[in-house]
Parts: sequence; structure tokens; C-alpha cells
Amino acid sequence: MEFSVTILGTSSALPTIDRYPTAHALNVHERFFLVDCGEGTQAQLRKYHLKMVRFNHIFISHLHGDHLFGLFGLLSTMNLLGRKNELHIYGHRLLNDIINDHIKYFGRDYQYQICFHEVAVKSKEVIFEDDAVIVETFPLKHRVSCFGYLFREKAPHRNIHKWIIDKYSLSLAEVVRIRNGSDLRLEDGTVIPNEELTYEPYQPRSYAFCSDTAFSNKVAEYVKDVDILYHEATFTDELKKMATQTGHSTARQAGKVARLANAKKLVLGHFSSRYKDYSVFLQEAKEEFPEVELGKEGKTFRIELKRFKD
Amino acid sequence: MEFSVTILGTSSALPTIDRYPTAHALNVHERFFLVDCGEGTQAQLRKYHLKMVRFNHIFISHLHGDHLFGLFGLLSTMNLLGRKNELHIYGHRLLNDIINDHIKYFGRDYQYQICFHEVAVKSKEVIFEDDAVIVETFPLKHRVSCFGYLFREKAPHRNIHKWIIDKYSLSLAEVVRIRNGSDLRLEDGTVIPNEELTYEPYQPRSYAFCSDTAFSNKVAEYVKDVDILYHEATFTDELKKMATQTGHSTARQAGKVARLANAKKLVLGHFSSRYKDYSVFLQEAKEEFPEVELGKEGKTFRIELKRFKD
Repeated sequence: MEFSVTILGTSSALPTIDRYPTAHALNVHERFFLVDCGEGTQAQLRKYHLKMVRFNHIFISHLHGDHLFGLFGLLSTMNLLGRKNELHIYGHRLLNDIINDHIKYFGRDYQYQICFHEVAVKSKEVIFEDDAVIVETFPLKHRVSCFGYLFREKAPHRNIHKWIIDKYSLSLAEVVRIRNGSDLRLEDGTVIPNEELTYEPYQPRSYAFCSDTAFSNKVAEYVKDVDILYHEATFTDELKKMATQTGHSTARQAGKVARLANAKKLVLGHFSSRYKDYSVFLQEAKEEFPEVELGKEGKTFRIELKRFKD
Repeated sequence: MEFSVTILGTSSALPTIDRYPTAHALNVHERFFLVDCGEGTQAQLRKYHLKMVRFNHIFISHLHGDHLFGLFGLLSTMNLLGRKNELHIYGHRLLNDIINDHIKYFGRDYQYQICFHEVAVKSKEVIFEDDAVIVETFPLKHRVSCFGYLFREKAPHRNIHKWIIDKYSLSLAEVVRIRNGSDLRLEDGTVIPNEELTYEPYQPRSYAFCSDTAFSNKVAEYVKDVDILYHEATFTDELKKMATQTGHSTARQAGKVARLANAKKLVLGHFSSRYKDYSVFLQEAKEEFPEVELGKEGKTFRIELKRFKD
């Protein structure tokens, strides 16, 4: 029951020798999701042993090259690797034109179908759902249309307390009904509500991706109570003005969003290439929110499953 | 008076963990030329300390992604780095459309001009010339239109033998005339031809890029007497049939081209990702042509200047 995100790139527009542009690989119960796809993503996936063909959904935040230019090589390589399954790509409507242009020049022989899903939201909306995860998207505050993505593990079926089964000598049919949400009506007419009969076997986990964006209270609302908040931190305090001008955040502002959102952990990334020492990012964010870590290529942030005992 | 080529990528279509798709950086007297631009080229340039803004000419062999998908990130980064100089790009006519599409979506704010030069040749033709180098292009034999590039250092001005100056007490004006190619007419009417008065101060150097291509005698003719022949070797002998089917070469065929061309050195690359051990490429090519080396990311092949003494 894995729930983890592997950071593939942490640089902003200008890559450095050891930092790649943005891409995150999310694993929810061995289903793989890619968020953004900067140049070199396919090489990074290979390096960190994440099989390209297992990714069926790619979410693109916005149409700046450092979040996107790895898509063409990835699409091409997926075909060479024999992909047959549909690939779902989510993003701004112009991304559909860009993909169609790519197919016109390079993808006429692709053996798989690309299904494009336009993202155009003014508040938070669900854009994907299966039996393990719900993906919501919400607007960020950048120079161009830009979207964040919130991945929430679905709430599991509630388990029945064993002592309830014993106490009331429940039949299999009754157990199934209660697991599906029914209350229990006793012979004397008393009704025991479902929530007293059952418990949540584990707490659903969540991860939010917020880049690129200037500081925004609304972002904190959209990702309320998230377990892992990835928030960009392109600059440190001294370049706060530049952050505002370019539609980016400082590490301190990322920390503030994490605090307002009541996040459990904050991961920083999208660092400007002008910095050599990243400890200042950590320090400034920590002054707002203690549970912060720097993103790093190849680093996996795993949320362990917390099971509740009967 | 540098003349060197740095290999940035040696993989074929599927990159591996330590091999990048095709790109070569050529330095002729501190003028920089890029041949092909697979994904990750900008990162490789940075890694090997080759300044992106110094490249004014990019030559693309053909429109397969593994020779091209790094172009978009490179164009974008050049703009971010403040490029103002024209950038010249050479390739198949559809590359112009691809670049224009790129500019439409990502390059509206580019502060430099891209000058596109269509390559469409049926035999060898000069496509670029400055005072240091002549670049010729010629057709390769691939599944799609594909072009090789031959970079030839220009023949230097001939020097006058010192003993000639002394013997005939030449004036400065006479020296200049002879340097510019004139013969010497003595007082008694005897004419000494220019080639007896002068010598070549050094031998012009050359480098040829031949990928992707099936084996072809014509390629050997186009690159006759080249100093460094880069020739693709996607497969070894056991997959000769596949090489022919896919428009590629074996290492042995690359060796044969080098031998027929009377090349001084052969460099192999574009290795299929199915190989783990590259020594077979070297061995099979050596059986045809002894002076062979394997290409490797970051490896620079430098041709030292051979000065002829007076």
C-alpha cells in the first residue's frame, strides 16, 4: 500500500550540473502518476528505476518549457518500449495543440493513444478518480495559467469491530451490509449507527504539488491538511520582490503556506540556479513551519500507512 | 588554434543510465558548432563547460527525436542566458516548421533571431563558410532524409621561405604579393612559381559526422581523407540484418567506411541500448580499420596542429 513521491527535478528554468527541471513521480498502490515533465525526465525515471510504461497519467502544471520539454522524448520512448495502453495527459488547452504538433512530426507511428484532458479551473475540482486515488486540480498564481494538483488516497472501506460481530452474533449477510455502510437494527428496535459498529482501518494519505506560484492564501485552503506539500521556493528572502514580480515564491512564503494549510510536511524545490548553498531555503522556511525538507533529485518521500487497530 | 570535437551523447534512440542521445560539440579556433541536439544536450554542455551562448550554428542530421529533442530546451535557455546574436540552424525543411511551432508556443519573447537554413542535397555541397572553416553536407542512407556534415579547416595562407626573402632581398610589398599568391619575376625575366616560394604552414584538419546511416560507399567518398570520422555503429555483426532494415550500420561497416575513406581516425557511437559490453564494437571495427575509438560522453577528440617548419 505504497504512497510515495520521488523528486526527479528541483531546478527552476536554468538547469545546473546536478539539478534537473521539474518532474515528480507519484506511486499510489503501485499506480504511477507523473507531475510535470522537464527535459531529462525519461533519463531520471530510468536512473531511479521507475518504469516508464507504468505511467498512465501525466499532469502538466503549465506551459513553460522547464515543466514540459521532457514530454516529447518520453512519449517517443514509450512507443519504442512497446506501449499499447492509453496515456492520459492533463493540462492547459494549448498543450493539446502542442501534443498534436508533436504527433504530426514525430508520432505518426505511435502504437498507443494519447487522451488529452483540458484543465481549466477557477477553484478546486476533481479531474481524475479511480478506486485508489482522487486527483484534484486548483489554480496557482503564476504569470501564465498554472495549476496545482492534489492527490488524495481514497478513504478505505470501514472495518467492523470484532467485538460487535461476537456480541451480536452477526451473520455474514449482516457483516456485508454493515461494511457497506448500514446501521444495525436490534430485535428490540434499537438502532446502532454504522460509525459505532465500524472503524477506519487506516487514514488516507495525500500529496499536493504547487509550482509555479506566487504566495497565495488560497493555495493553502486548497491543500488543507495535506500530508506532503510540495511547494516551490525559487528564491530566498532577499529576492522577495523578484519572487513577486516573476510569479514565484520565497522559501519563507512556502513555509507560510504549509503553516496555513496545516500540512504535515513541506518539501521545497524549483530553486533558482543562482544559489549554491541551499541551507538558507531550509532555514527561512523553518522559521514559518518546522517540518520542512529540501527536495533533491532521486529523493523519495514515503508516507507510511498508519493502521488503526480494532 | 583548436580543432576538437566533444561527444555529448552516444546512445541510439533509447537512452541508458549513462548514455545520452546524439550531440557533438565542435571547436574550430574557438568557434563552436553543434551537430545534432538530443534530449539533455544543454545539461551536457554545462557539464563539460561548453558555454551555450558561444554556439552560433547548429546542424541537425535528421528529424528523429533522439537527434533533436534537446533543441527546445537549448533555444529557451539561450534566451534566458541573454542571447542577442543570431542563431543559425541547418536541417531538413520541416525543421523550420517545428522551430516556428516552438516559437509560437514558447519563444514569443526570444530576444534573438533564429535563421533557418534548409538542407536538401543529393550530393556534397558547401552550406557554411567563414574564415576558419568550411562546412559541407552530404546525404546519408537512412529511413528518412538524413545528412552528414564535414567540417574542414580552411587552408591557411602560405608562408614565404625565409631563405627566399634573403636570397632575393624582397621588399615588404613583394612579400605581401607573394603571400597573396603571386609568382616572383626576377630582373632577368625568370619566373619562380608561387609554390616554390612558399610552403603550407600547417595542414588543415577535418572532422565528419555520419549518423544515422546504413553502410554506403558514397559516404566514404564524401569524407575522403578526413582526420576524424565519426560514424554510427548501432549494432554488431550479429544484428547486421537489423542494421540494414533500420537504416543503420554495424561497427564493422563503420570500419569499412573509414578504410575506404582513408580516414585517420574512426570514432564510433549511436550504440543500441541492448548492449552492455562495448568492446565487441571496437573489436569488429578494428578488423576493418585499426585506428578506432569508442565515443563516450564527455570525451574530447583533439587534432593537434602539425606545423611545417621552414
